Amino acid sequence: MEKIKVGILGATGAVGQRFIQLLENHPWFEVSFLVASQKSAGKLYKDAVKWKLETPIPEKVKDLFIYDISNLNTNGAKILFSGLDSSVAGEVEEFYAKNGYIIISNSKNHRMVENVPLLIPEINYEHINLIKHQNYKGAIITNPNCSATFFTLVCGILNKKWPIELINVVTMQAISGAGYPGIASYDILGNVVPYISGEESKMETEPQKMMGKLDNGKIIYENIIISASANRVAVIDGHTESVSISFKEGVPTIEELKNELRNFESPIFKMNLPTAVKFPVRVMEEEDRPQPRLDINFEKGMAVSVGRIRKDNIFDYKMTILGHNTIKGAAGAAILNAELFVYLFNEKLK
Amino acid sequence: MEKIKVGILGATGAVGQRFIQLLENHPWFEVSFLVASQKSAGKLYKDAVKWKLETPIPEKVKDLFIYDISNLNTNGAKILFSGLDSSVAGEVEEFYAKNGYIIISNSKNHRMVENVPLLIPEINYEHINLIKHQNYKGAIITNPNCSATFFTLVCGILNKKWPIELINVVTMQAISGAGYPGIASYDILGNVVPYISGEESKMETEPQKMMGKLDNGKIIYENIIISASANRVAVIDGHTESVSISFKEGVPTIEELKNELRNFESPIFKMNLPTAVKFPVRVMEEEDRPQPRLDINFEKGMAVSVGRIRKDNIFDYKMTILGHNTIKGAAGAAILNAELFVYLFNEKLK
Amino acid sequence: MEKIKVGILGATGAVGQRFIQLLENHPWFEVSFLVASQKSAGKLYKDAVKWKLETPIPEKVKDLFIYDISNLNTNGAKILFSGLDSSVAGEVEEFYAKNGYIIISNSKNHRMVENVPLLIPEINYEHINLIKHQNYKGAIITNPNCSATFFTLVCGILNKKWPIELINVVTMQAISGAGYPGIASYDILGNVVPYISGEESKMETEPQKMMGKLDNGKIIYENIIISASANRVAVIDGHTESVSISFKEGVPTIEELKNELRNFESPIFKMNLPTAVKFPVRVMEEEDRPQPRLDINFEKGMAVSVGRIRKDNIFDYKMTILGHNTIKGAAGAAILNAELFVYLFNEKLK
Amino acid sequence: MEKIKVGILGATGAVGQRFIQLLENHPWFEVSFLVASQKSAGKLYKDAVKWKLETPIPEKVKDLFIYDISNLNTNGAKILFSGLDSSVAGEVEEFYAKNGYIIISNSKNHRMVENVPLLIPEINYEHINLIKHQNYKGAIITNPNCSATFFTLVCGILNKKWPIELINVVTMQAISGAGYPGIASYDILGNVVPYISGEESKMETEPQKMMGKLDNGKIIYENIIISASANRVAVIDGHTESVSISFKEGVPTIEELKNELRNFESPIFKMNLPTAVKFPVRVMEEEDRPQPRLDINFEKGMAVSVGRIRKDNIFDYKMTILGHNTIKGAAGAAILNAELFVYLFNEKLK
Repeated sequence: MEKIKVGILGATGAVGQRFIQLLENHPWFEVSFLVASQKSAGKLYKDAVKWKLETPIPEKVKDLFIYDISNLNTNGAKILFSGLDSSVAGEVEEFYAKNGYIIISNSKNHRMVENVPLLIPEINYEHINLIKHQNYKGAIITNPNCSATFFTLVCGILNKKWPIELINVVTMQAISGAGYPGIASYDILGNVVPYISGEESKMETEPQKMMGKLDNGKIIYENIIISASANRVAVIDGHTESVSISFKEGVPTIEELKNELRNFESPIFKMNLPTAVKFPVRVMEEEDRPQPRLDINFEKGMAVSVGRIRKDNIFDYKMTILGHNTIKGAAGAAILNAELFVYLFNEKLK
Repeated sequence: MEKIKVGILGATGAVGQRFIQLLENHPWFEVSFLVASQKSAGKLYKDAVKWKLETPIPEKVKDLFIYDISNLNTNGAKILFSGLDSSVAGEVEEFYAKNGYIIISNSKNHRMVENVPLLIPEINYEHINLIKHQNYKGAIITNPNCSATFFTLVCGILNKKWPIELINVVTMQAISGAGYPGIASYDILGNVVPYISGEESKMETEPQKMMGKLDNGKIIYENIIISASANRVAVIDGHTESVSISFKEGVPTIEELKNELRNFESPIFKMNLPTAVKFPVRVMEEEDRPQPRLDINFEKGMAVSVGRIRKDNIFDYKMTILGHNTIKGAAGAAILNAELFVYLFNEKLK
Repeated sequence: MEKIKVGILGATGAVGQRFIQLLENHPWFEVSFLVASQKSAGKLYKDAVKWKLETPIPEKVKDLFIYDISNLNTNGAKILFSGLDSSVAGEVEEFYAKNGYIIISNSKNHRMVENVPLLIPEINYEHINLIKHQNYKGAIITNPNCSATFFTLVCGILNKKWPIELINVVTMQAISGAGYPGIASYDILGNVVPYISGEESKMETEPQKMMGKLDNGKIIYENIIISASANRVAVIDGHTESVSISFKEGVPTIEELKNELRNFESPIFKMNLPTAVKFPVRVMEEEDRPQPRLDINFEKGMAVSVGRIRKDNIFDYKMTILGHNTIKGAAGAAILNAELFVYLFNEKLK
Repeated sequence: MEKIKVGILGATGAVGQRFIQLLENHPWFEVSFLVASQKSAGKLYKDAVKWKLETPIPEKVKDLFIYDISNLNTNGAKILFSGLDSSVAGEVEEFYAKNGYIIISNSKNHRMVENVPLLIPEINYEHINLIKHQNYKGAIITNPNCSATFFTLVCGILNKKWPIELINVVTMQAISGAGYPGIASYDILGNVVPYISGEESKMETEPQKMMGKLDNGKIIYENIIISASANRVAVIDGHTESVSISFKEGVPTIEELKNELRNFESPIFKMNLPTAVKFPVRVMEEEDRPQPRLDINFEKGMAVSVGRIRKDNIFDYKMTILGHNTIKGAAGAAILNAELFVYLFNEKLK
């Protein structure tokens, strides 16, 4: 089978690099088109990028030319992954969507726009049908904020069976979430920074849309009250979340709750999407897990780990949730969204 | 004035070292007696200790002889600071208390015992009168778990004016809280460990005693529901706490709440205790403070910093609280307790 | 082909765990026998081990029984990998060697013994023939100290062409080199410790043996003067070495030197050993490489990276050398030695 | 006595902040004038600075107005400390020097200029007389690169008694040396970066000037061969140096060498300079010291610690040297230079 050509918007940035790394041996996709800012446009990728990942730059991408953000000659790529900075993502993504391209975006700009799907496909893949109501010749599909992803996946599974009323989440987030150069070493080494700009409001609003129901081409937001506190810690990759939840009614036993999570089979797994994981949540029983250093790479970073599930004095339950912020929380999530799009809307690529 | 001679139980441990450091130039106290385990007993302090603090071993302590834990020849010391490991603290502290010594303990063993004062003297110094009801010839006075200290000081101040119903606290705790050698570097470097043995239950129970009222020689526990989640992070000193609170009734405005904290004058400050701080809580307005690296040494580590005070979606307010875990949360707290004892029960030392 | 059964001595320790991880899908070897200290003996592996690696315990090993160190019923294993602590390795390894087992040891105890091969097989695989002169029914084969491995591989290649006179090496070593629990976090977080017990003398003596020539069943030590200074830094895996060298005569040009390293083909690669790498040295041209976080996993941790090769004011050249201390510097090295043994002495396993 | 008014060029930067911190309670100097780049000029200091030190902004400086770099209305300040970035320091420092100001600079720009003193006053305070040969109405006085400072102080003391021939130095440098924001956390957390731009050449050239002799208004450079390798490690403050030295002739015994260092009395101490330390070198005997976390604050960061002094296989001796890079290696060094200037050239301030 001939691979589907794809492009990367924001190819030299932290998320762009992760896209390129994860797509290196992707069975469906092949990177053929790169876009970056003025500073890098006009150069070869290997000359423009300050590559920061543990695996080398893929050979096939090294010598790709970098185009600027208004280029429509995409070398056959119809799907464009966007890791653009939010300062430009809004305009650039719309430009390409209007011109017929499928934008699979990790940026925040369009996430809360009415007709734009905001997907954690394990819990709301059907939201992708919102694109039928978009006014673009192409489409825009988004994945959520990394910190919102992990607890929303867990809560979204539970919420289908036992409606949730309250979620309190306190995060300990990795530095890679801030991009590159991101946070100065002088600020975070041996330290905790109890603030991440804009992060808490994303965690408090995106989940309602994601857990909402698609009804007549619109999302009816789920009515859950969320409180989020975001902290940065000296961890490279992996966001740890201390999460407390209360149910509206019908509180499950702790074993019911664990079983629901550990037995939850991703509904998109049977579509044979290359990046989909059958059991997207791992329930850990060790008293001191999950931990970012030991657990983020479970299922190649596409699953979420939950541990320390226990009864709470104030809420019904509390637990620790961990996910890989630049894979399941960013580039990997977007790639899964693209696979879902190809599976369901294959004709759009013709 | 001649200084009061004091001893250190557990002199070579992490808390013991901090006692010795903080007492180096203390205007009232002078270290004259050291006790440690079999391994160190019989040696000079400088030969037995693996000193781990940034200032050198005080000259006067270097050559003190280390006694074993059943020695009653205390070289004139009547007040004994205990940084003993909880595996031996119970028995050893009682032994000395029975023999007429005043035990100022940082260990957990006697904290929840009925007639033992558990003090954050800024909010409950009158609890020290519990010692009148002890059956020791001497006395045992304790300070709380380090993580319990910081939010209880803040909540204790507020609770006097606006009774608190709920406290949810998620900690990011420094490695020095685990003593020495404590947590292996392989476990915490670039990592978060979402578990600290026994810590959460201390945080959920000690505050009710500390915020309780002394009535007829007994403490009537305060009725507040507390939920605590403890995490270890790669920070040397300083526990950061993400705290949410709800009041029973009469919710203050945010300005009332901040003013109450920032204007709270420690009732023991007027006693002229050397270690007492006039304003034990600092309210910070910067959006990204407090941070352990920048803020733990405020008021020589004896004050607590509070920042990011804001309205919450679930609770009434949430905020970030920071304290120095081995000073205000351990050795410094004990020294303040000793000063309080000397001020109020001076005759007992005769 | 049926796999060769192997055992692990010291199975629960840091090196033992790495052995088990690296052998999980090994095409030749299958772990069938585990030995550990009294504390763990008699338990199942999954119950005894405090597993610290990022991949889960291999399924096939989880339920293996742990034997104590005098057990000769090895469940078919004839090759025994030793990650034993040096306090017991000497005796235990000899015990098994005398009883006919092939000991592939990472421990220091036998490295400098006359008839024991000390192998970096890329440069001295023929030393393995020393085992013909051992008085064991079985044999003992060793790999060097991790820090000695990396610069000796590089210098060993160069020394064959241009005899080396002096080597000055200053290391910045990862914490995993200290085993588990190893160095306390309180000692190394945000710190450098300029001392590692016994390390410098190993680096100053083992290379002479390894670069020596096998002559009539004896090693004639190479005459090179080495000075080593060992430092511990806050890195999980990967030893970085700042190395300066002078040649005895015939100094190569910088390009000759780089070409010799980058084109050096491992003589054991053509034996088709599963763990052998064709080009065991990578020469990097970026001015700020190699770095442990980015470069230790090159060739699955079995190659060494060299960068910043430049002329020196005192020595002829200086450079930065990096290797994965628990793979190429320990467990991976031992596995390669075992493969070499199987290739050359296959009949001994019958 | 009325204090001498001083200004800070580059007041908002990392070195500028350290100047302001260290001068807070200085007995001779009082900060009255601040200069910073366009971005900050025109604002009050407290509004422009992103303060990063553990002590609060001094009250007296908080509300000082920030001027731009061509302002000559210095509010009475005649001595100007420069922590300017090297991209502008050259021009700005000359501008002020020409206009009669005494520039005490930490920047590299003028260090190697013929008539500019490059001072470690403990070993070469008489070099300050070079200013008599400057063509400025004012003067420029510099202190060396931080990494050059520490080993040059130690070697400079030894060299006076036993001439040194060779110095090999490998550094492990703190992140604060890179200024703010400096090195990205993503680059250094859990890592070593074996390269610091421009650092090695400063370490290889500045010492010859500093150890040189002042002869007829010129410095005759000392003839010592130096090789430097610079590494960045995850440490906040404190550069650790692994140093090897050979003497030209007359090698001292190890005890002679240690005694020379530990008994070396700073020749400027008797001038009663507030920042001068009597014994600027501490010799440590513990096998694992000095360490940045424990030892940088010795003598308020103005002394250098030396440990692990031992015989070497290649050089005569090797040792570990540690200094506080932003105090003795930067701002503290400059303040000491200013004190020396005031002591010797007091009339110039009239």
